[in-house]
Amino acid sequence: MLPSVEILLAEDDPADIALVQHAFRRHHLANTIHVARDGVEALEFVFRTGRYATRPVGAPPYVILLDLKLPLLDGIEVLRRIKSDPGTRSVPVVVLTSSREDRDLAECYALGVNSYIVKPVDFAQFDDTVRQLGFYWLLVNQLPPV
Amino acid sequence: MLPSVEILLAEDDPADIALVQHAFRRHHLANTIHVARDGVEALEFVFRTGRYATRPVGAPPYVILLDLKLPLLDGIEVLRRIKSDPGTRSVPVVVLTSSREDRDLAECYALGVNSYIVKPVDFAQFDDTVRQLGFYWLLVNQLPPV
Repeated sequence: MLPSVEILLAEDDPADIALVQHAFRRHHLANTIHVARDGVEALEFVFRTGRYATRPVGAPPYVILLDLKLPLLDGIEVLRRIKSDPGTRSVPVVVLTSSREDRDLAECYALGVNSYIVKPVDFAQFDDTVRQLGFYWLLVNQLPPV
Repeated sequence: MLPSVEILLAEDDPADIALVQHAFRRHHLANTIHVARDGVEALEFVFRTGRYATRPVGAPPYVILLDLKLPLLDGIEVLRRIKSDPGTRSVPVVVLTSSREDRDLAECYALGVNSYIVKPVDFAQFDDTVRQLGFYWLLVNQLPPV
């Protein structure tokens, strides 16, 4: 049985979006993947404003996969707002980025990111990484109560 | 090649300690597992005091596996001190506990735990869970720079 968990994928690269959706579907990992293509939309989802004003409060728990280079508002700022608000800081945020720079790593961990993953360049490795992170966060890890 | 990452296992149950050590060894996951048998010793390791006053500052990055029911100082308090200090809050902490109570889950996430895992009762499942968490944190996840 699929866990009743949703994914918020904050990502603007169409190829990466397709790859994540494909990997989750192929490994039967999530019922619902919401895609936010910029940082503003990601925050609207999390804080239930704008395009997501009608998202129900009792919605299933979810995990955020967050790219760092996002249009309109970058991922670091999205992370900062989520983790500095007591109402949203418990939502697990996994950064999924092409940056392996120490500065980004240090800043994300200091802001309270739950996990930081560097996107593998190789397609098969990227697929395997998404499978492993999906299994870990949806099946091994216990999410906070809604 | 083994990743040069260390594990701090804060756990007082000898059977659980043996199981985690066995799983990490069998799956070639970590060079070094330090065991702290109570909450005070765990904090001494993290803050380099007492028994760990000589632990070098340039030591490899590490991940903490933290039981909640620890002697002397409970795991929630250990988590609170680690995550409220800017010098240590970036260290990934994975709670590994037999408690699946909403109160514990909510409190750990509010304090900034990176991940929360309920120990499976079944031996084979526990072994598999340790394998998955080891792979995830040591090979998939990118740790903060030391």
